[in-house]
Amino acid sequence: MAIDVSVVGAAGYAGVELVRRLLEHPEFNLVALTSDSDAGKLLSAVYPAFEGVSDLVFSAHDCAEVKASKAVFLAVPHKAAMAVVPRLLEAGVSVFDLSADYRLKDAAVYEQWYGVEHASPELLAQTAFGLPEITHAELDDAAGRLAEGVPALVACAGCYPTATSLAAYPAVSAGWAEGAVMVQAISGVTGAGRSASERTHFCHANENVEAYGVGTHRHTPEIEQILGLPGQVLFIPHLAPLARGLLSTVTMHLTSSAAANFNIDDAIAYYRSFYAGSPFVCVLDPGVQPQTASVAGSNRAHVGLAFDPRTRTLAATCAIDNLCKGAAAQAVQCANIVFGLPEDAGLDHMANPV
Amino acid sequence: MAIDVSVVGAAGYAGVELVRRLLEHPEFNLVALTSDSDAGKLLSAVYPAFEGVSDLVFSAHDCAEVKASKAVFLAVPHKAAMAVVPRLLEAGVSVFDLSADYRLKDAAVYEQWYGVEHASPELLAQTAFGLPEITHAELDDAAGRLAEGVPALVACAGCYPTATSLAAYPAVSAGWAEGAVMVQAISGVTGAGRSASERTHFCHANENVEAYGVGTHRHTPEIEQILGLPGQVLFIPHLAPLARGLLSTVTMHLTSSAAANFNIDDAIAYYRSFYAGSPFVCVLDPGVQPQTASVAGSNRAHVGLAFDPRTRTLAATCAIDNLCKGAAAQAVQCANIVFGLPEDAGLDHMANPV
Amino acid sequence: MAIDVSVVGAAGYAGVELVRRLLEHPEFNLVALTSDSDAGKLLSAVYPAFEGVSDLVFSAHDCAEVKASKAVFLAVPHKAAMAVVPRLLEAGVSVFDLSADYRLKDAAVYEQWYGVEHASPELLAQTAFGLPEITHAELDDAAGRLAEGVPALVACAGCYPTATSLAAYPAVSAGWAEGAVMVQAISGVTGAGRSASERTHFCHANENVEAYGVGTHRHTPEIEQILGLPGQVLFIPHLAPLARGLLSTVTMHLTSSAAANFNIDDAIAYYRSFYAGSPFVCVLDPGVQPQTASVAGSNRAHVGLAFDPRTRTLAATCAIDNLCKGAAAQAVQCANIVFGLPEDAGLDHMANPV
Amino acid sequence: MAIDVSVVGAAGYAGVELVRRLLEHPEFNLVALTSDSDAGKLLSAVYPAFEGVSDLVFSAHDCAEVKASKAVFLAVPHKAAMAVVPRLLEAGVSVFDLSADYRLKDAAVYEQWYGVEHASPELLAQTAFGLPEITHAELDDAAGRLAEGVPALVACAGCYPTATSLAAYPAVSAGWAEGAVMVQAISGVTGAGRSASERTHFCHANENVEAYGVGTHRHTPEIEQILGLPGQVLFIPHLAPLARGLLSTVTMHLTSSAAANFNIDDAIAYYRSFYAGSPFVCVLDPGVQPQTASVAGSNRAHVGLAFDPRTRTLAATCAIDNLCKGAAAQAVQCANIVFGLPEDAGLDHMANPV
Repeated sequence: MAIDVSVVGAAGYAGVELVRRLLEHPEFNLVALTSDSDAGKLLSAVYPAFEGVSDLVFSAHDCAEVKASKAVFLAVPHKAAMAVVPRLLEAGVSVFDLSADYRLKDAAVYEQWYGVEHASPELLAQTAFGLPEITHAELDDAAGRLAEGVPALVACAGCYPTATSLAAYPAVSAGWAEGAVMVQAISGVTGAGRSASERTHFCHANENVEAYGVGTHRHTPEIEQILGLPGQVLFIPHLAPLARGLLSTVTMHLTSSAAANFNIDDAIAYYRSFYAGSPFVCVLDPGVQPQTASVAGSNRAHVGLAFDPRTRTLAATCAIDNLCKGAAAQAVQCANIVFGLPEDAGLDHMANPV
Repeated sequence: MAIDVSVVGAAGYAGVELVRRLLEHPEFNLVALTSDSDAGKLLSAVYPAFEGVSDLVFSAHDCAEVKASKAVFLAVPHKAAMAVVPRLLEAGVSVFDLSADYRLKDAAVYEQWYGVEHASPELLAQTAFGLPEITHAELDDAAGRLAEGVPALVACAGCYPTATSLAAYPAVSAGWAEGAVMVQAISGVTGAGRSASERTHFCHANENVEAYGVGTHRHTPEIEQILGLPGQVLFIPHLAPLARGLLSTVTMHLTSSAAANFNIDDAIAYYRSFYAGSPFVCVLDPGVQPQTASVAGSNRAHVGLAFDPRTRTLAATCAIDNLCKGAAAQAVQCANIVFGLPEDAGLDHMANPV
Repeated sequence: MAIDVSVVGAAGYAGVELVRRLLEHPEFNLVALTSDSDAGKLLSAVYPAFEGVSDLVFSAHDCAEVKASKAVFLAVPHKAAMAVVPRLLEAGVSVFDLSADYRLKDAAVYEQWYGVEHASPELLAQTAFGLPEITHAELDDAAGRLAEGVPALVACAGCYPTATSLAAYPAVSAGWAEGAVMVQAISGVTGAGRSASERTHFCHANENVEAYGVGTHRHTPEIEQILGLPGQVLFIPHLAPLARGLLSTVTMHLTSSAAANFNIDDAIAYYRSFYAGSPFVCVLDPGVQPQTASVAGSNRAHVGLAFDPRTRTLAATCAIDNLCKGAAAQAVQCANIVFGLPEDAGLDHMANPV
Repeated sequence: MAIDVSVVGAAGYAGVELVRRLLEHPEFNLVALTSDSDAGKLLSAVYPAFEGVSDLVFSAHDCAEVKASKAVFLAVPHKAAMAVVPRLLEAGVSVFDLSADYRLKDAAVYEQWYGVEHASPELLAQTAFGLPEITHAELDDAAGRLAEGVPALVACAGCYPTATSLAAYPAVSAGWAEGAVMVQAISGVTGAGRSASERTHFCHANENVEAYGVGTHRHTPEIEQILGLPGQVLFIPHLAPLARGLLSTVTMHLTSSAAANFNIDDAIAYYRSFYAGSPFVCVLDPGVQPQTASVAGSNRAHVGLAFDPRTRTLAATCAIDNLCKGAAAQAVQCANIVFGLPEDAGLDHMANPV
């Protein structure tokens, strides 16, 4: 009674990470992995880590197995996603979309930041946002409807919004912060995707650190939506010379009442209680800061807190693997919830300890 | 009916990799992980990848659980290993030793290369050498004796000898090669161990490649012993700026008869038949060369072959993860065999595809 | 008529970078490089890049040449510096101190952040702060006094304060900003110094990003002093896997009047006019962000600006080489000014273009 | 009375390194840098390390300045080079060609390895091979002819042949070696050039080591030609995760007479005498091995020797920067010789010490 699933867009970095997670999954049965550019090739010919592990072959996007699946993990670029999602839902297939197309509740905001008209704004209201530690209720609703035969549409959170929100949401939602929130994040190069470009060239990225898209990155409105802070987030991403890993460091100015008797142990205790139900989020001890290497290859997130009384600022930091908790593994986590499986099924993989 | 095991020397890189593999193992039950320097500390405090995964604590080397184990994985330096192995065997504990102390069959060779007298040469004859794809029979013998109550002593192969032998053994044992064998290998920095030194400093190793121990590295006699080529191996290791991964490229001059009708497809077919029983070794297609990234974090080995008719030389290359197939995971593979478990129990972990 | 100079503490990373700059300098004549731990060793034996370039030998700290120098570049830890500075000044030797000991004008602030009593607070008033683009007048004063025979004491700016101030000072000093300033910076591992430790181990730093010293880093009061914002800076440094390079990204909330008609081209023009006299600082075009690789190995600084009207925040970013503009080369720049040489003498070295 | 020179193909990695060296050169005056794809762009827009250093602009390949130059440094791909060299020579312009087109003395060998017919085989006889430490006489001849008005054609040695020959030539030319020579080399990713591809993607090259072109790399016949060992070299290049740097490790089986009384100190002394006239080659002390980081960014080469009496093999290792001594800086060194300038003019740049 395995659940047949497909990965559409399986040859990209998030796609292939999905393939790997699904091959290891106890309940999902991977029936198709598609890539128009690599159709017909062995998975192991494109990604030799699968040599001896799997003899799967890439199919074309329109192969029959996709529509026959119970769920599709969709790892295609924004715009391409909304071109196929309605058809999949109509065919009764649940969709876990890793693109940005259904993340923003307001189509006008989508059009403003992505520069294209939304093709199916009517689906936005029924979309569950996939960041389980914060939107579990939306995913539970989708699970309930699926049980009644309504296929689910889950818009999985982006990598930066995931780390940023895990760091900031408990504080913001508790009303501790006031004013604009400053977010600076650092990502490894897998975040830039598989296509070879000047920026992903080893000799550009190696021994180099740079900011990009300062104030204009498309993850900005997604962060604002999650935190409920429209127009109040400045998001500054950076690229650093590592493959996997994303660290987001958020600074929040506290209200005078929140700051008055701020106690770091209490704050950490609050964060821990907030994440008590999550198998994946650890809030570190006072004075300890998260490291991306500690979560690379896993669906885990490490969160650290520090308070600066001089500037009345709470600094919250979160480390994730951008391809795992920031993309593929989180999509599987969402699917686990929607299909009523244990939330961590197939996701117990830890980072290399060194 | 889990099998209680301990890791002695668990805070080093090979030790902690053992801990992680054993925590994921379906049959072995980790009852103690010891480190004299880190005794009393949380595993996750020393290696934060275990945060939220395990709340184990390091014990001292002489804790009671070690002697109560069915097997000890011993990850201490050479010389330190032979100081404790006899006592463990006497206590009825099987030992999987990752040090060099019991690898060389001839105590005189050990003393010549390690510069110390062997403390228990009488154990060498009964030691099984742990490189299953080549010494499976020795491990099967140990399994048979263990079934009769005799604790096993397995000297797990070193990282360089493992990759080098997987590349060269089928050709050498088939009598294809003549004369000395040249071995050049490249290792990541985890191979140099956890202790901080000038050589392991990021600012030394980064953006740097260097040879070291040319002709004098202690893995030389071990390679010669496996290949049956005493005094006929020149081994040249190099350090490159990566953490995990080891590539050994071996050049073998072929006999005139072996060279006469050499056919690369036949050679690859022969290698594949040689490794047909191994769940971990893949021999790649003609023209494809192994990459260390394809096996990092896994117990897998990728082997590539190329023949140069101009110089009548066979070049055989093997990529492994030095901490996994080159140390910890291979030790678990040996233990699986000796305890009659499936050879790949707990070892199905693949490399990150990217 | 060369000027005899020495480097005390020449075996550390900043020290050896000083040695290299001074060997290439047209006017300074390096008469001694000292290191108590490496005394008697060839420079090229410790740093093989000097092989074939220089046959200099490390001396002990108390060698005669030091006191006979016109100037000493002092690259020893804080506390060690203030133990020798008064004696050098008394001997008529000018001192360019790379430690923190004379950077803070207020001894009480020093004691608060460094946890030790200041040994010669009476020298603080006469110390010139060495960040020429901002404190040129202090250095010119020191030059004037030196011309009258008074040896100079220059406290060269720290690496993080240099990049941060070059990014923020023009805006802050023009009164554009209000409230606390958030500083997030990313440094390469050379910033952690030459001593081997868990944090500088390749296998820790590689493929890893982490924050550290959040709100407690000792460069905080130095940044506040330069910007004239006591208690108004939250400084969060990060470590990334590169050797040389430091990027500081500063977010400043603008006053309503500064924000009202903010124009990025005007802001960049203002910054350019501010740095018009500097041979080393480039303010990049709108939309272009600095990269650390573009300045690595050079005394150059690249500054980028972006304005986010939504949060009324100016983001200013500066990339430097932490060992060059952040330490050794900037010290030479200061010495050039104090000794009346062209400010860029010996400092025309550019970064590798790739 | 500066010498006007141009760089054709200036936007590639070797090309831009030439630009940088020539901008720093005391005698050569860079009048044009060409790139058809980047024509009209600022040099600093493509390579921001030139920001504030140079306001040069890329020209098209056919700009007038090229033909008006005394010399052209040609950094275009093989085949493209031989399409323009004859015209340049006819116009009286000396050519320093970094491509492979004129390296092989025998057009048939060129055609065999490069798969194209040679367009101007008649020029091969008059071409000087540019590896000054070994072919100084050819360059001196070219200088003599240039003095008589005959423009020079210098085929600068490839990166792998340079390092390999500096390691092996003294031994081979002295008759120490017999039989085939095994060459294993490791290169940084700049060796693969500026164009973005799967292999140069950061996420492929990072944390990865692989062999490629085993026995089939086009530098094989070039190495054989220099060493005078046709059909007797097996060359195995590897790619490692660094940007600049190339290490070649050559193993040579010694004749019985050479091996009989082999003494490493004498061998090193012989190598040192061989390279006594070169400002750039250092032969290291016994037991010391070269590191690529020690020469990165410089025109220097470090050579190390070790003898293994067990296998009667001499291992010679050489580290260079593939873009400098392996390409651009060596081309300038050749031009210095041909134009009668000091051999190291403009080339005194050393590697970063750390």
